[in-house]
Amino acid sequence: MSQDRFLFATALVKRAGAFAHEYFLRLDTLNIESKGHQDMVSEADRDTEVLVRDAIAQAFPDDGIIGEEHGAKEGSSEYTWIIDPIDGTANFVAGIPQWCVIIACVKNDEKHIGVIYDPCADELFAAQKGKGATLNGKSMSASNSASISDGSIGLGFSARSQKQRVIKAVEMLLDEGGIFFRNASGGLMLAYAASGRLIGYIEDHMHPWDCMAGLLLVEEAGGICQPIDVQDAVMNGCKVVTGGPKVFDKIKALTDKAYV
Amino acid sequence: MSQDRFLFATALVKRAGAFAHEYFLRLDTLNIESKGHQDMVSEADRDTEVLVRDAIAQAFPDDGIIGEEHGAKEGSSEYTWIIDPIDGTANFVAGIPQWCVIIACVKNDEKHIGVIYDPCADELFAAQKGKGATLNGKSMSASNSASISDGSIGLGFSARSQKQRVIKAVEMLLDEGGIFFRNASGGLMLAYAASGRLIGYIEDHMHPWDCMAGLLLVEEAGGICQPIDVQDAVMNGCKVVTGGPKVFDKIKALTDKAYV
Repeated sequence: MSQDRFLFATALVKRAGAFAHEYFLRLDTLNIESKGHQDMVSEADRDTEVLVRDAIAQAFPDDGIIGEEHGAKEGSSEYTWIIDPIDGTANFVAGIPQWCVIIACVKNDEKHIGVIYDPCADELFAAQKGKGATLNGKSMSASNSASISDGSIGLGFSARSQKQRVIKAVEMLLDEGGIFFRNASGGLMLAYAASGRLIGYIEDHMHPWDCMAGLLLVEEAGGICQPIDVQDAVMNGCKVVTGGPKVFDKIKALTDKAYV
Repeated sequence: MSQDRFLFATALVKRAGAFAHEYFLRLDTLNIESKGHQDMVSEADRDTEVLVRDAIAQAFPDDGIIGEEHGAKEGSSEYTWIIDPIDGTANFVAGIPQWCVIIACVKNDEKHIGVIYDPCADELFAAQKGKGATLNGKSMSASNSASISDGSIGLGFSARSQKQRVIKAVEMLLDEGGIFFRNASGGLMLAYAASGRLIGYIEDHMHPWDCMAGLLLVEEAGGICQPIDVQDAVMNGCKVVTGGPKVFDKIKALTDKAYV
């Protein structure tokens, strides 16, 4: 039953990614500043979420669904799906080929499935609780780095972020010989943290559809995430602090000071 | 004669990109932490530069060549080529598909050709002095935004950067409602500024092989760059401040305060 949902999720996220990618390629023919441009982006976001919601409702009609663009659908099963049809919308709008489709599934307030698909690079990051994490079907691991100066840390920022926290995080990171990476897709950066490309990822607040899949990816790839209350995070979002197993404590110490 | 060099440069940067990309795909089979991994990255960097240098020396034996990995070759013609075989090496090492090959050509101390190729996204950014700029053969334009809060600004940082400058730039940017983007490839971010994906790009110091092609791309795409002394920059690098035509003055005002 759970395995059914995992295979379903990996197929669905790729289908949704290919669908959104068609919009992305068509945007190329419109001027970024034109009204039609923004309309098409909004349309891509909404239609991709509808595609995902419809597929879930058909396959698992009793499951709950929460998405970024449309409201919540109450379910009667143990499972709730959480969807971000296009994460990294600013990149999508601007034509930057770094955005992703995110699908997570929570079972009885536990992270259960997390899949993130980057259509431009054709990369599928997938994790199932207790079963490890893969990148395009191959096992992946969080960073083995032991020092903040050993690699880049993804740094998230949104309209909800407090400026002083971000500035403090940048300052502390540089003081420790580290460096930030920000490609404007929190989902993709969490996937990079899960695959060891970044040594960790931090953001003072993320929506559940942005972070839930990535948090499971990091954990199943052997990384560490600052614990969250899943039930609360599904409703209200949460602070996100992750890192490879040897460097997590140092990253957490940094955010404990910066994100106050 | 000049047109010969431009067509030659666009073909060469794609060939070099495909060559480096083969290493990138092979890296996937090695562990990031292993010694062999770092060796292969260095080999990719060196061998790609050799490929580019050899091609130039054969086609235009009298031209000068300056590269990141190997020393300078004095020329007797008006032309000097400036090469960065892999820009965004940290991404390349980590498996992040965001890096590029950069080839610039300077003629009598004027920027003459700038080509940047991103093999993972198969995107070629190309400009020739006075002839405009293209992305995969289609005309491209710098951002039309008039406000710093209207888009993302690429923010460069290297081991040579002064921390306080970067922190100040982040702070001022956020204060004006803006946001930074840093995907760890200065060349690619300059190309994004030239194509209007970012509204501008700033870095307190760049090497000539990192910035010369991108600066021409921005100018030929209708953007503005803070003027540089090309002869000096070819030897010593320079500060880089660029922006769309309506927002450049605001970006420059910001860096005038931050990069002191």
